[in-house]
Amino acid sequence: MRDTPINESFTLTPIGYIESDYPDKFGVPRQPGLATAAKATLVLAPPFNTPLCVRGLETFSHLWLSFIFHRSPQEWTPLVRPPRLGGNKKTGVFASRSTHRPNRLGLSLVELINVNTQDGVRLLLKGADLVTGTPVVDIKPYLPWAEALPDARSGFAPAPPPFYPVEFSMAAESALHAHADGDNLRSLITQVIGQDPRPAYHQTGSTRDYGMQLRDINIRFQAQKMSNDSTVMYITDIQKAT
Amino acid sequence: MRDTPINESFTLTPIGYIESDYPDKFGVPRQPGLATAAKATLVLAPPFNTPLCVRGLETFSHLWLSFIFHRSPQEWTPLVRPPRLGGNKKTGVFASRSTHRPNRLGLSLVELINVNTQDGVRLLLKGADLVTGTPVVDIKPYLPWAEALPDARSGFAPAPPPFYPVEFSMAAESALHAHADGDNLRSLITQVIGQDPRPAYHQTGSTRDYGMQLRDINIRFQAQKMSNDSTVMYITDIQKAT
Repeated sequence: MRDTPINESFTLTPIGYIESDYPDKFGVPRQPGLATAAKATLVLAPPFNTPLCVRGLETFSHLWLSFIFHRSPQEWTPLVRPPRLGGNKKTGVFASRSTHRPNRLGLSLVELINVNTQDGVRLLLKGADLVTGTPVVDIKPYLPWAEALPDARSGFAPAPPPFYPVEFSMAAESALHAHADGDNLRSLITQVIGQDPRPAYHQTGSTRDYGMQLRDINIRFQAQKMSNDSTVMYITDIQKAT
Repeated sequence: MRDTPINESFTLTPIGYIESDYPDKFGVPRQPGLATAAKATLVLAPPFNTPLCVRGLETFSHLWLSFIFHRSPQEWTPLVRPPRLGGNKKTGVFASRSTHRPNRLGLSLVELINVNTQDGVRLLLKGADLVTGTPVVDIKPYLPWAEALPDARSGFAPAPPPFYPVEFSMAAESALHAHADGDNLRSLITQVIGQDPRPAYHQTGSTRDYGMQLRDINIRFQAQKMSNDSTVMYITDIQKAT
């Protein structure tokens, strides 16, 4: 009865590529929508970069992007350790949104800001959690009457991850002041670092210095334990990336 | 800077296959969730059919399935005619959920009823819009705090499609009475035929007889124009499929 033989495989061709604020995997938010100051552009590739392909897309405020986790290894394991469980409990790979999964398919809900068809097709997006260079394989409009299910149960991930307060050193403040787009950059850094991008297994008691890149800058930060036992993410330094 | 060469392609291997109430493409609802009486099972294939892969999945009520429109042609065109626009207006393929699209990737939000790991892994689903034999390439849990956006704008598809009243002939009624699962079958037929599965270009003034298959039965139906200009979907006959 089955008309698809088991083990048949399917080939995907990217329809375009992402240009984003995230040059590197480390620090990319773990879900889309968490860092709304993050901008990204989906640049459609030939033969998909005709205005016809996106006609009517501007009537939707949100899009689903299907993409490939091209920086993740091809290997997968049945069990993964989601950061949401502190990195020490295991869950099934299909019960997670881990980037280490069979087929390496990603799915992100992003806000559509603008459709530019001046020269090819460029979609300006907000809140994306996609590293620069990500190959996108499909775009679908978001349908709130079918896909907004606020009462759905989500057992071990029932709410957004916590955000930590973010503070800037004097040196970091000066660097922001000197930056052309300092205010937006401050928002972006706060949103990204505030979610604690450290690996889950570092998240207890480490005072290590971490680095991450956003746009054209390098950021150094530490997680500092306060006397009342709360955690503050402290930006020690901001430097132009070389 | 890009680390993925343009025109690189990616290969997907199905992680499992669908067994559903829809043996054939014709009549399958145009969105998931519209026919809640429809049952489907996702049967995971080796090496993915280990209970480990789905550990914790039962804590989620809804899942995203990524799948291949394996019955759709490989060809695609930049413009499509969505049934929602009456079949006579064109929109861009990426502004639609058309099954005729580059990469033939489908995305359905389904309700998870049960995870059976007795012998391999079988996920019992509700409200799926998937034809039997559909190759599934990924499962992701639905996260309502990130993905339920009731205020999102969806320009040309702002609400569910209309449902028409469904009436059954005497012959159809008798066949339902004689069927072991007649009540559930009546709900399923009502939900599926009530959304008017006819091609959009037939939806004005045609009194043709249509046939579709659900589970193990063949259904004949007509769209009847009433004197007050409303439309009723009339089930003329129900027969055991041979």
